Amino acid sequence: MSTIENEEGRTELGHLGKYAAIERLTDEFVPKNSSTFIGVGDDCAVLGSGETKTLVTTQTMAEGVNFDMMYTPLKHLGYKAVARALSNIAAMNGAARQVLVSVAVSNRYSLEALEELYAGIRNCCKRYDVDLVGGEMQSSRSGLVITVTAVGEVSEDRITCRRGAGEYDLICCSGDLGSAYSGLLVLEREKVTYQANPNFQPDLEGYDYVLERYLKPEPRFDVVKQLAESGVVPTSMIDVSQGLASDVMQLCKSSEVGCEVYEEKLPIDYQTTRVCSEMSTNMLPVSNALNGGEDYELLFTIKQADYEKVRKLDGITVIGHIAEKNRGTMMVTPQNSTIELVAQGWVSQE
Amino acid sequence: MSTIENEEGRTELGHLGKYAAIERLTDEFVPKNSSTFIGVGDDCAVLGSGETKTLVTTQTMAEGVNFDMMYTPLKHLGYKAVARALSNIAAMNGAARQVLVSVAVSNRYSLEALEELYAGIRNCCKRYDVDLVGGEMQSSRSGLVITVTAVGEVSEDRITCRRGAGEYDLICCSGDLGSAYSGLLVLEREKVTYQANPNFQPDLEGYDYVLERYLKPEPRFDVVKQLAESGVVPTSMIDVSQGLASDVMQLCKSSEVGCEVYEEKLPIDYQTTRVCSEMSTNMLPVSNALNGGEDYELLFTIKQADYEKVRKLDGITVIGHIAEKNRGTMMVTPQNSTIELVAQGWVSQE
Repeated sequence: MSTIENEEGRTELGHLGKYAAIERLTDEFVPKNSSTFIGVGDDCAVLGSGETKTLVTTQTMAEGVNFDMMYTPLKHLGYKAVARALSNIAAMNGAARQVLVSVAVSNRYSLEALEELYAGIRNCCKRYDVDLVGGEMQSSRSGLVITVTAVGEVSEDRITCRRGAGEYDLICCSGDLGSAYSGLLVLEREKVTYQANPNFQPDLEGYDYVLERYLKPEPRFDVVKQLAESGVVPTSMIDVSQGLASDVMQLCKSSEVGCEVYEEKLPIDYQTTRVCSEMSTNMLPVSNALNGGEDYELLFTIKQADYEKVRKLDGITVIGHIAEKNRGTMMVTPQNSTIELVAQGWVSQE
Repeated sequence: MSTIENEEGRTELGHLGKYAAIERLTDEFVPKNSSTFIGVGDDCAVLGSGETKTLVTTQTMAEGVNFDMMYTPLKHLGYKAVARALSNIAAMNGAARQVLVSVAVSNRYSLEALEELYAGIRNCCKRYDVDLVGGEMQSSRSGLVITVTAVGEVSEDRITCRRGAGEYDLICCSGDLGSAYSGLLVLEREKVTYQANPNFQPDLEGYDYVLERYLKPEPRFDVVKQLAESGVVPTSMIDVSQGLASDVMQLCKSSEVGCEVYEEKLPIDYQTTRVCSEMSTNMLPVSNALNGGEDYELLFTIKQADYEKVRKLDGITVIGHIAEKNRGTMMVTPQNSTIELVAQGWVSQE
């Protein structure tokens, strides 16, 4: 009996965590086709037998779980659904080529509403030179569920997986962390106020950066491009979707290593800090950075020999280093104490 | 203003139909990548620049819409979700290689329940030599939504699309039609009886064929193989997912042709006929065949010159022929009158 099974032999998904659940469910699947280069367990599957590999990934967004229609413009939603899937292609160091979009939708939505959604899908496709090549539409009992499959390419010598990080490698992160979650906090706050008083006009001025980070994230193909131009192939990479803590732990687990991340190195935007101080004196910006998620930044490791090259790149921060596995996945505080990173549980609803 | 827009400028999805909605939403997308060989509008996207093309397709099943947990064993559901996606690969005359499975799930489901689902996924993967190479899991507010992306291969000279049917081509169909829907009718009948009296023991004996057709459909790769062995490349092909009427109309629309389908040629199993006669004196087996859907048989057209080759294949029925576009999409009754085929509307819920 597993330690998280209860007396009836029922294991609650919420106790297990998303990565652990997928691992448990897929560990008996052993690839047999010669065209399966890398299977389950990374940001994308890597397929094909030539020198250029095909990347495939799929991402679902469900109303009421991944977005709230009260404050999510449909055009932004379409953009974000595509951007999230493309981010997985970026996380393999690849180039995005195509997407397929499946929409399950209730009759609460009109064709005109879906046209807004598809306008956002089109904007993101256009921005990243990606073709919409398929998908389907069907009815749903409860709101909108949108699944995007993204297809990309990467040459075999540039594939970057979650596994591959080696001891003493430097841990790097693009952009800043926690801002998307801070945007969500602002939207939730305005929603509560609006619900109490429908005449209330939401005041979102001064929050534009964190709102855009939450509503309209961008996959970091600019970082992929910079890495290529500087001749650096990261030793491992993942995109920050669950939150830095969960994602760095996943990268370390796949690579069978430990890490030390320095709290004071974490890149945090001033708007994130401001939102936290407004929300509660107990809310620390570092918590948003560690557990907020949805930043869609790239978290990657490089050999120390590549440090000088990466140092010159725009908006890349070295936040720590890889350690031997027995060290665990640790964060070093400004007071120089070390605490173990903890991934937030997977919140299941209904 | 569209003719189906109401006075508020709102177009109801239910009035439009699934194929028409996708067409309206995607018609502004123009592929730009050289690796996009065929984009939106077929059973799969066809990608890649070599002689062997990559097929990609995605299919979603939502609880309460595509399946009822009261009578759908989770193992069958997993099998069916994969089989439906693979059927799209078969419909392009291709070979299936990989699948990615995304599951959105409420905390009503335990890990053990999902293990059942994945056992079914594994069975179908094993049966068709397909690798599970990825996917994700996340929470859902309402039940289970499962999206399967299937990846396959086809050589350029064997690609079979919805477009391509020419005048006088013969329309062929594998297996029989309407049996999956008949299975659903039996399950719904037993559910109603059970709800009225929970001590009631469902009696499903004698319905095994139609039940299996509904609960555990099989993609027709055996037909794809037979066609290859006999040296026949169909001029067009689609799988029967919406129902023969809707799917033959879609094939004709894509090919810019009309058709004549002969009612008395439609392959209908005796269990389908039996279920219809039990349900109501007004329920005609031909209606199930035309509009039931979910048969996952292959509907394809061949040149008349290939008739002798196809006649020798197992379980293939010639049900009609392609006509010029102005003829419309017609069914010829046993009384020799012709009636226009009508696709059932797309039923949206909530």
